[in-house]
Amino acid sequence: MSQYHTFTAHDAVAYAQQYGGLDNPSDLTSAQEVGDGNLNLVFKIFDTHGVSRIIVKQALPYVRCVGESWPLTLDRARLEAQTLVEHYRHSPQHTVKIHHFDPALAVMVMEDLSDHRIWRGELIKGVYYPQAARQLGRYLAHTLFHTSDFYLHPHEKKARVAQFINPEMCEITEDLFFNDPYQIHERNSYPAALEADVAALRNDDALKTAVASLKHRFLSHAEALLHGDIHSGSVFVAGNSLKAIDAEFGYYGPIGFDVGTAIGNLLLNYCGLPGQLGIRDAAAAREQRLSDIQQLWTTFRGEFLALAEAKSRDAALAWPGYASAFLGKVWQDAVGFCGTELIRRSVGLSHVADIDTIADEAMRNECLRHAIQLGKALIVIAGRIDSAEELVARVRQYG
Amino acid sequence: MSQYHTFTAHDAVAYAQQYGGLDNPSDLTSAQEVGDGNLNLVFKIFDTHGVSRIIVKQALPYVRCVGESWPLTLDRARLEAQTLVEHYRHSPQHTVKIHHFDPALAVMVMEDLSDHRIWRGELIKGVYYPQAARQLGRYLAHTLFHTSDFYLHPHEKKARVAQFINPEMCEITEDLFFNDPYQIHERNSYPAALEADVAALRNDDALKTAVASLKHRFLSHAEALLHGDIHSGSVFVAGNSLKAIDAEFGYYGPIGFDVGTAIGNLLLNYCGLPGQLGIRDAAAAREQRLSDIQQLWTTFRGEFLALAEAKSRDAALAWPGYASAFLGKVWQDAVGFCGTELIRRSVGLSHVADIDTIADEAMRNECLRHAIQLGKALIVIAGRIDSAEELVARVRQYG
Repeated sequence: MSQYHTFTAHDAVAYAQQYGGLDNPSDLTSAQEVGDGNLNLVFKIFDTHGVSRIIVKQALPYVRCVGESWPLTLDRARLEAQTLVEHYRHSPQHTVKIHHFDPALAVMVMEDLSDHRIWRGELIKGVYYPQAARQLGRYLAHTLFHTSDFYLHPHEKKARVAQFINPEMCEITEDLFFNDPYQIHERNSYPAALEADVAALRNDDALKTAVASLKHRFLSHAEALLHGDIHSGSVFVAGNSLKAIDAEFGYYGPIGFDVGTAIGNLLLNYCGLPGQLGIRDAAAAREQRLSDIQQLWTTFRGEFLALAEAKSRDAALAWPGYASAFLGKVWQDAVGFCGTELIRRSVGLSHVADIDTIADEAMRNECLRHAIQLGKALIVIAGRIDSAEELVARVRQYG
Repeated sequence: MSQYHTFTAHDAVAYAQQYGGLDNPSDLTSAQEVGDGNLNLVFKIFDTHGVSRIIVKQALPYVRCVGESWPLTLDRARLEAQTLVEHYRHSPQHTVKIHHFDPALAVMVMEDLSDHRIWRGELIKGVYYPQAARQLGRYLAHTLFHTSDFYLHPHEKKARVAQFINPEMCEITEDLFFNDPYQIHERNSYPAALEADVAALRNDDALKTAVASLKHRFLSHAEALLHGDIHSGSVFVAGNSLKAIDAEFGYYGPIGFDVGTAIGNLLLNYCGLPGQLGIRDAAAAREQRLSDIQQLWTTFRGEFLALAEAKSRDAALAWPGYASAFLGKVWQDAVGFCGTELIRRSVGLSHVADIDTIADEAMRNECLRHAIQLGKALIVIAGRIDSAEELVARVRQYG
């Protein structure tokens, strides 16, 4: 077992040569660190022709943006690699492939996706990938169904719950999603102009009760092996391809959390579009987002139901009609979690480029306010929004 | 570490001398095996005056009633001892005290409760312990609150979930509660006269969908460290005392399962009383059971809310009003799980003496039919029964 040390570019090339599974490993000659996150080193490894062939990703033992002051478990690299390996088993089309993983070095070697682009960036530029929402719905249906009680033997499910217990990464979500935005906290970040909107989040009884219930579900409902952070920045897209990456928040949680995070980021883009594109383009892109949301849910639901009908192994859960009833609850969870994503990305520590890169301050604040108000409404009325069509109608209402 | 071997009475005495924590261990001189279960050896250890002083309980590696043909994990002794130790920390008044535990021998030394009686036997004889229901409510409130997300740090909660993963004992519940009674299965046991009532359980869409949902909650909702089998045969009572024993089904599950099992066994007694006592006594005892159910829930709810207000450590869950909203869901879970207990004890492998010891066959069958119909109704309408008063009204309606 190798001892942990931070990789240099030279280390990364040598490691990729050894573990990349390429036919001519000696062709790999150089590396470039391209990580834009704060938690990891990400090296692209190039061949003699300057073509990026493979990725070496290493977890850092601290949060990079604050130096070495915020330590963070290296075990998250194990959790990320094992989540991606498990998801790849069930959705190889839409999960990045892991070639090798070393827990002591907290390093993994994975498929290069240089021919893909981060979905969030494309959404911001107004580049439309009409298949992406359906593909993300399919990814979620296959990964979540096959790791759920519908499919796994109860012994195996319980072993997986234990394997994927992820206290430190879950704590980040528990704090950033469900605590910080609803109280005064130094991690929060929002313009002073929004103080009244943000202050109103702290004493709204219906809102705080609903947020407590969502947090409680996040803490206790071990329904499936979630990606745990499936926003549009964790998704690569290309012509007809979509691949999920960055699963270090993977754990057994409520299915609606993954679905709600995905939908929430489409809505954040919706909120930001008037600040990113001209009026006509923004209006067209907004319609695409609403259509994306409907397609994501319709595909997810349809594929999950088809899998449940064909492959459920639990005698009781296999009863015709149960999966559909369960997905009704998943949908309500998803709408609520979606609302918390809108709020925490507008008020909390971690914002999204869809809104933060808007140059005009007044417009940016208006978009943030829109996201906060929409998020608040969705959290409170989640139980009364029965379908994706109803959600879209509500979004238009709070537009 | 000692190697597993089945204890003789002689072994049990020697073990109690060593680990019983008594002042004069050499006073312990004899043992009697009193286990009436099928899974364990239970020795009472007597002193020179013939007084029972301490209990030695050892898990058997098989189910005794079927010889050695049905192997069962010895790890259940660890789970039982650790569950009882944890519950004793939070409710010492109402949990049997564990003095010593050895995982390799699957043996524990525990408090002698010879001055107590099994509650079920007393209920059948019509002996009323007016404080018992309140005490059981208090036991459930304290043990479940202090092991829940309201009270535990999320890291500790997650570690406990892993510690108490209990695949083999949970599988018994998963099968006996949620599968067998709703299908043709060789483990089922009921009189031929009830064939039509039982057959009707197998194709009732609303019932099977609700049972699937209850099983799914049992499989995935890790809310608190449950006792897991808190029926009236797992409860010792005396003048003003109540003690829970036999926690080998302990695991992190939905709080409503423990509450529903407790209430379900009071209702099974209610169903059997006309066959156990004269008309006047049976009617009086039935009113006591309905009062017991209300007191159990009222006490549980009141104590849980008081603990939530005074001791919640989770910032979001501590919001005033959330605990009450959550207990509304717990109540609906409890009513549903209560219904599954009524059915599985009437149709499945394991029956209750409250009904099975009724001598008159026609009367016995009528009581079984009553339990089945009541159970079925409760499962299907659980979502519409808002309070213990409403439950009592429904019980009278299906009487």
